[in-house]
Amino acid sequence: MTPLHPAEIPPAVMDSIRNALIEDIGHGDMTTMLTIDTSSRSEAVLTAKEATVVAGLLFFEAVFYIVDPGVEIKALAVDGQLINKGGQIASLRGSTRSILTAERVALNIMQRLCGVATLTRQFVSAVSGLPVKVVDTRKTTPNMRYMEKYAVRAGGGDNHRFGLYDGVLIKDNHIAACGGIKNAVEKVKKTPLLTKIEVEVKDLSELNEALSTNVDVIMLDNMDTATMKQAVGIARAARTDVLLEASGNVTLQNIMEIAETGIDIISTGYITHSARAADISLKIIYTNLTEHLPS
Amino acid sequence: MTPLHPAEIPPAVMDSIRNALIEDIGHGDMTTMLTIDTSSRSEAVLTAKEATVVAGLLFFEAVFYIVDPGVEIKALAVDGQLINKGGQIASLRGSTRSILTAERVALNIMQRLCGVATLTRQFVSAVSGLPVKVVDTRKTTPNMRYMEKYAVRAGGGDNHRFGLYDGVLIKDNHIAACGGIKNAVEKVKKTPLLTKIEVEVKDLSELNEALSTNVDVIMLDNMDTATMKQAVGIARAARTDVLLEASGNVTLQNIMEIAETGIDIISTGYITHSARAADISLKIIYTNLTEHLPS
Amino acid sequence: MTPLHPAEIPPAVMDSIRNALIEDIGHGDMTTMLTIDTSSRSEAVLTAKEATVVAGLLFFEAVFYIVDPGVEIKALAVDGQLINKGGQIASLRGSTRSILTAERVALNIMQRLCGVATLTRQFVSAVSGLPVKVVDTRKTTPNMRYMEKYAVRAGGGDNHRFGLYDGVLIKDNHIAACGGIKNAVEKVKKTPLLTKIEVEVKDLSELNEALSTNVDVIMLDNMDTATMKQAVGIARAARTDVLLEASGNVTLQNIMEIAETGIDIISTGYITHSARAADISLKIIYTNLTEHLPS
Amino acid sequence: MTPLHPAEIPPAVMDSIRNALIEDIGHGDMTTMLTIDTSSRSEAVLTAKEATVVAGLLFFEAVFYIVDPGVEIKALAVDGQLINKGGQIASLRGSTRSILTAERVALNIMQRLCGVATLTRQFVSAVSGLPVKVVDTRKTTPNMRYMEKYAVRAGGGDNHRFGLYDGVLIKDNHIAACGGIKNAVEKVKKTPLLTKIEVEVKDLSELNEALSTNVDVIMLDNMDTATMKQAVGIARAARTDVLLEASGNVTLQNIMEIAETGIDIISTGYITHSARAADISLKIIYTNLTEHLPS
Amino acid sequence: MTPLHPAEIPPAVMDSIRNALIEDIGHGDMTTMLTIDTSSRSEAVLTAKEATVVAGLLFFEAVFYIVDPGVEIKALAVDGQLINKGGQIASLRGSTRSILTAERVALNIMQRLCGVATLTRQFVSAVSGLPVKVVDTRKTTPNMRYMEKYAVRAGGGDNHRFGLYDGVLIKDNHIAACGGIKNAVEKVKKTPLLTKIEVEVKDLSELNEALSTNVDVIMLDNMDTATMKQAVGIARAARTDVLLEASGNVTLQNIMEIAETGIDIISTGYITHSARAADISLKIIYTNLTEHLPS
Amino acid sequence: MTPLHPAEIPPAVMDSIRNALIEDIGHGDMTTMLTIDTSSRSEAVLTAKEATVVAGLLFFEAVFYIVDPGVEIKALAVDGQLINKGGQIASLRGSTRSILTAERVALNIMQRLCGVATLTRQFVSAVSGLPVKVVDTRKTTPNMRYMEKYAVRAGGGDNHRFGLYDGVLIKDNHIAACGGIKNAVEKVKKTPLLTKIEVEVKDLSELNEALSTNVDVIMLDNMDTATMKQAVGIARAARTDVLLEASGNVTLQNIMEIAETGIDIISTGYITHSARAADISLKIIYTNLTEHLPS
Repeated sequence: MTPLHPAEIPPAVMDSIRNALIEDIGHGDMTTMLTIDTSSRSEAVLTAKEATVVAGLLFFEAVFYIVDPGVEIKALAVDGQLINKGGQIASLRGSTRSILTAERVALNIMQRLCGVATLTRQFVSAVSGLPVKVVDTRKTTPNMRYMEKYAVRAGGGDNHRFGLYDGVLIKDNHIAACGGIKNAVEKVKKTPLLTKIEVEVKDLSELNEALSTNVDVIMLDNMDTATMKQAVGIARAARTDVLLEASGNVTLQNIMEIAETGIDIISTGYITHSARAADISLKIIYTNLTEHLPS
Repeated sequence: MTPLHPAEIPPAVMDSIRNALIEDIGHGDMTTMLTIDTSSRSEAVLTAKEATVVAGLLFFEAVFYIVDPGVEIKALAVDGQLINKGGQIASLRGSTRSILTAERVALNIMQRLCGVATLTRQFVSAVSGLPVKVVDTRKTTPNMRYMEKYAVRAGGGDNHRFGLYDGVLIKDNHIAACGGIKNAVEKVKKTPLLTKIEVEVKDLSELNEALSTNVDVIMLDNMDTATMKQAVGIARAARTDVLLEASGNVTLQNIMEIAETGIDIISTGYITHSARAADISLKIIYTNLTEHLPS
Repeated sequence: MTPLHPAEIPPAVMDSIRNALIEDIGHGDMTTMLTIDTSSRSEAVLTAKEATVVAGLLFFEAVFYIVDPGVEIKALAVDGQLINKGGQIASLRGSTRSILTAERVALNIMQRLCGVATLTRQFVSAVSGLPVKVVDTRKTTPNMRYMEKYAVRAGGGDNHRFGLYDGVLIKDNHIAACGGIKNAVEKVKKTPLLTKIEVEVKDLSELNEALSTNVDVIMLDNMDTATMKQAVGIARAARTDVLLEASGNVTLQNIMEIAETGIDIISTGYITHSARAADISLKIIYTNLTEHLPS
Repeated sequence: MTPLHPAEIPPAVMDSIRNALIEDIGHGDMTTMLTIDTSSRSEAVLTAKEATVVAGLLFFEAVFYIVDPGVEIKALAVDGQLINKGGQIASLRGSTRSILTAERVALNIMQRLCGVATLTRQFVSAVSGLPVKVVDTRKTTPNMRYMEKYAVRAGGGDNHRFGLYDGVLIKDNHIAACGGIKNAVEKVKKTPLLTKIEVEVKDLSELNEALSTNVDVIMLDNMDTATMKQAVGIARAARTDVLLEASGNVTLQNIMEIAETGIDIISTGYITHSARAADISLKIIYTNLTEHLPS
Repeated sequence: MTPLHPAEIPPAVMDSIRNALIEDIGHGDMTTMLTIDTSSRSEAVLTAKEATVVAGLLFFEAVFYIVDPGVEIKALAVDGQLINKGGQIASLRGSTRSILTAERVALNIMQRLCGVATLTRQFVSAVSGLPVKVVDTRKTTPNMRYMEKYAVRAGGGDNHRFGLYDGVLIKDNHIAACGGIKNAVEKVKKTPLLTKIEVEVKDLSELNEALSTNVDVIMLDNMDTATMKQAVGIARAARTDVLLEASGNVTLQNIMEIAETGIDIISTGYITHSARAADISLKIIYTNLTEHLPS
Repeated sequence: MTPLHPAEIPPAVMDSIRNALIEDIGHGDMTTMLTIDTSSRSEAVLTAKEATVVAGLLFFEAVFYIVDPGVEIKALAVDGQLINKGGQIASLRGSTRSILTAERVALNIMQRLCGVATLTRQFVSAVSGLPVKVVDTRKTTPNMRYMEKYAVRAGGGDNHRFGLYDGVLIKDNHIAACGGIKNAVEKVKKTPLLTKIEVEVKDLSELNEALSTNVDVIMLDNMDTATMKQAVGIARAARTDVLLEASGNVTLQNIMEIAETGIDIISTGYITHSARAADISLKIIYTNLTEHLPS
């Protein structure tokens, strides 16, 4: 995984991070303003309190940058790296006030993203060796999609479409309203150029209808693995270039069985909507050591 | 729990919901625009696919309202209510396009909030009968705090402060930088009027120092239950009006033991940062039944 | 062309229209406030002063809606329709102040979009009968992309990707930085699922390199038509499923020659960045006819 | 023409440029992120591919500044300067990713503004030697008004009012609603202090009515040049201090004839709403020459 | 004074009012949510607790509209009207929660605007009968300019320019940097069309220099009334059409003396930056009288 | 008073300052752009033209920072300091254009805040020696609350709650709707943890009801000082820990009499909503002294 480039946080994501700071800071960090001197400076360490896959260091940095560009952050790990319990992820130095005021939002982002990356890594590892991609969905936390999809990649997963705008996924409701898969696909085929088309099928009959069109991806939705295996066989026989995606109730327990059907892609909302936060802490280790802190 | 009043979603929260829609819709819902006719109208049902505590119906409605005020939503449950698997939470009728375009954001919010409410209910139930409050923290999802704290209340929990701005919580770092609890509390005591003051203590020695000030709330941080019990005894003997809060590593397994120490408040970030999404689906049940859909 | 659905203007596009109103209105429409009575009501007509393809009626309506939801607008044409000189496009009735204040922004949008649609129609007509799509580019006016791409569709054209986010187009600079087409495509192939991949080639040697990968679309950039014809032959022989796009210096004069090479797609920035505004006027036809204007 | 001062881009215009970047970048520049290494650095050149009047260098710089303040830009021309085909306008050095991601928005702005400046220069040159000003209108592209009016000045033109808020222009609709020019002017005269008043007249009768008031500017709307000449004579005889503006259907062909009527100002929307984009390219000339690129 | 038209609050002013609500409401009106039932409905009255000139009813309405469009407001006075102590300005009926939550922001705006209008009325009345205009300045409260300038008009005053953008006022610093008034005016005269030009002079020598140019308005800055009288005589002898403005240390005590110098305009920042708030209260008169409150 | 720390202006307050600049600058500072050369540099001084308590230097700096980070500002006083007439508050050096464009907004903020601080100081001084706090209210200028409350502290006062969100204040309307003080307090007591509860009472009967609950603060609203003295006696006898606040019609004349009743807190909206602006000027003292102005 390539680490994020500073110019790589899209402006809309920076706005989202800034909104999160406004949400937490409001009219000011009362406690810090009342107890910490403006001249106080500190060093702090970001530490994993359990084993975790690191994800989101640039967003962590961005939080501090928005509050106070003078806080210096040194990464001690890279996104995608597995850190053991007790491992240090980053060190910080700068104004004590700035560090304390930005701390919670920075941690909330970091803990969530590391949680997503760690859970993704578990799913990915469960099918390691098999030629299958574990991908996310649009079942992400509101206003966190870009960051959560980044965390999925940090965990070794891949990204499905980012929104309603960058991929066509024809689902049961669309099919019903169009009078069948063929009609739906034909309607869509007239238009987009660089966006692939995917269609969701729930049984072998729908699969066959889908195969008769030239969609790019077919999603086998909520099939049991026996049916899925059959479906993969039928699809491979009919078309070599179609991607097959399994979706619905994927767990760490059943993912290997799903992968062994020969599917290309396994998608799961669980890795984003139900990951628990990683246990990570930010602790100040020195304060007011002005003599040790140049500039 | 009183249901939300229409004028009760603060403007800043409406902005956050609108941002979530921009995040998902971007330049448009490609699939829906290509497959669904503008005149198509539908009825849909929001259904619990597992037992869940309902939370967030007004936010759910707000999502549709922003996309298309013409979509009518009828609540079939109230926030705070436990719905069994298969139970209907709400029904919708209106433009098929609007329903499909708003669906995912509405579900992402609803599933998250019901997840938080359900987990909170479990923690609250685990100590039912005891005079203790289960409260949340600032460990919420960025840009979701207002909604998640609402869900905590729907689950029977209470809210700790909403941000850095509406409560004073003097933590270890603040104490260190002030040269002790007494100094920190004195500094703070000079200022706020309507904001209570809480101080975090990690052992009995700090507890005694805290008791010698007139702080409003004392947080016993990460104490084992034996020490905590001792601490509660000391505190009750010293001051009858101080609130005592337990914090750190609260689980469904140990919460009863913590409660039995006689503590007033148990706070946990787990109910917001690590709740898994509730399984809820939105299914269209009729489409194009123009004759059945007045206006 | 399906007309736009009310819920179909994405929130971000509504923001852009609102910003345009703020740009024009600033602290108020001085002239109108000083000369027009608040109770004055009018009827007005939107008229084509030259033959034009209509595009953007919903955006036109949105401008008035933001200023004053009380202005009623009746479409007398549909987007995509060719209107002759003198033809009426829409009629309006409502507060005279509101109509005059919103007029210029509404016209600026409408004239631009009709201009784009009309020019697009000319390009599309120039190759009618041939199985080729005329598509736009990202060379659109800042903050007008969604609306301009809508106008392209109204004119009979198709849309290339909407932004840097919904399609992969590997251009010369990317190729150079990756050490060749193959490497670049391989790097990319690892990742996206629902986004097709296009690569730009400038000569037959690059074409052959591109054909050896499994990209979805190949753009023949700035080739003369003789070379382009040769390129199409080579590509068709090599792969039946690859889309071929011609790009660079497309004019009404040479587009047929380009189309006859057998290319699938012809893209041109000219239809968006260099369309002249259509001549359209908004004239008030009655004022203060309170008796004819209910409510 | 004085070049723009860094502090001279009003905050609202910076917002508009930032919105344009959000429009193009969305959730990220897929191609660049997948193919270009974060450490890659490049030099690029902005070149005129046809003769053009330069306009908008500061806005061009602002685009890159928002994406990455580390990209250094060196202007090789000044706004208002005529550059021949092949002439270099600016050089850039910095992160390859940043340059590629910002390129299209920067070019879209620059091409449009140079197009406006070049067309304006043609209109201005067509009447050079005569004491007449060529001015723009409010017929500008939504959200681009400030930049387009800047380009008009770069082309040698002058600016009419910027919006509904900074000038009073009484048009036919206002006159009708007030029962005549005199009444309208009198109503207006009561109020503004630093904003001049202009009235639009369509024939000699209205001209005489306008002259009987003390408006500051009279616009002769859509008059043929014979009538316009007569009108100028009448107006000059009546009042020496009134400014006379010709408006409507001004072309490169007829502008000299209009100017020779003795008019003071010729306004035309054509230079902003119908200018075609100048042909300008941004090409990377070196990549990864880390050794040549200090800092 | 014409009352405000609904469509007359410019979008940017609506944003400012909404921001004020976000400032006050933040994450919610704690007290009201905890004590008032969602179904509770009330009637309330807006009453002057001292004699005041009314100003800003539409902004008052806008505050409630943003919080809850269901609150009905009936104006019992019009802007510009003098209301005696105890007089009712408006009545309201609707959700008790909505009324209480919006109350403070609505009152803060109303009290400030009535204060400005009342003070303006005093200045205007002090010179009634004389042909002089009392005008405001740019010394307004940040983010309140549009509303405060509206209040000045409600008080019988007139508005000077709204911002740096809609009038040219050459002050001492500009003059110094240009090497004198003539140079400064000449530089400026080249450019704007619909914006008048005003120059500030501090003594008779500068006045004479200013008169030698054709500026539209001359501001006599901080002159004693004897000198001012002399200045008016000189100016009237030299040019009949120039407007003369007096500025600096205008008080209710000296304004008549200033007016008697024959000046055209007297400007004062005092009426906006130092007006005290009018004493106005909003009282709920009935609550929960559902039977009296239809709809 | 501790001076403000750079990272201490909350993001939402920066937005408010930026909005104020957009309000004043709009599409540009016409006069400055037309008369001042971009290369011109100046030194300026911020001077008190009357004795004033200084407040808001950081906000003053923020205005210039937003316009042009290159303007250097040197504080010559600290917030909270009393400056005599003629005293210098700060000096500035940088681009003449930037200084002139930012001047008015910076002064409008500074004059208002110094006015608030100075008036607050008078109220505070009037009761010096007595153990009473003078505090503000929510009767602040829209969008200026944070800055005005800062100025109150600079003047020696204290802050009541910042908004509806960070304190519970049960007023007459809430009491009425709940059927009495006890019910209202009980309803509220169920919920908040770190927010104190205050109740407003208008006579001794209500006071006794309030004392029977365990509210934290009781506000004696609009009582005459005789009654207030009685009330204080009753309250002190009943509960030692309750805070007593006097509110309503506090003036410099009666504040000592109020304080002598033994009250803890005196709150007044007057210091924020009716302070007159301090007389402060910004004068350029040198221009174009390039040789004296390094970098």
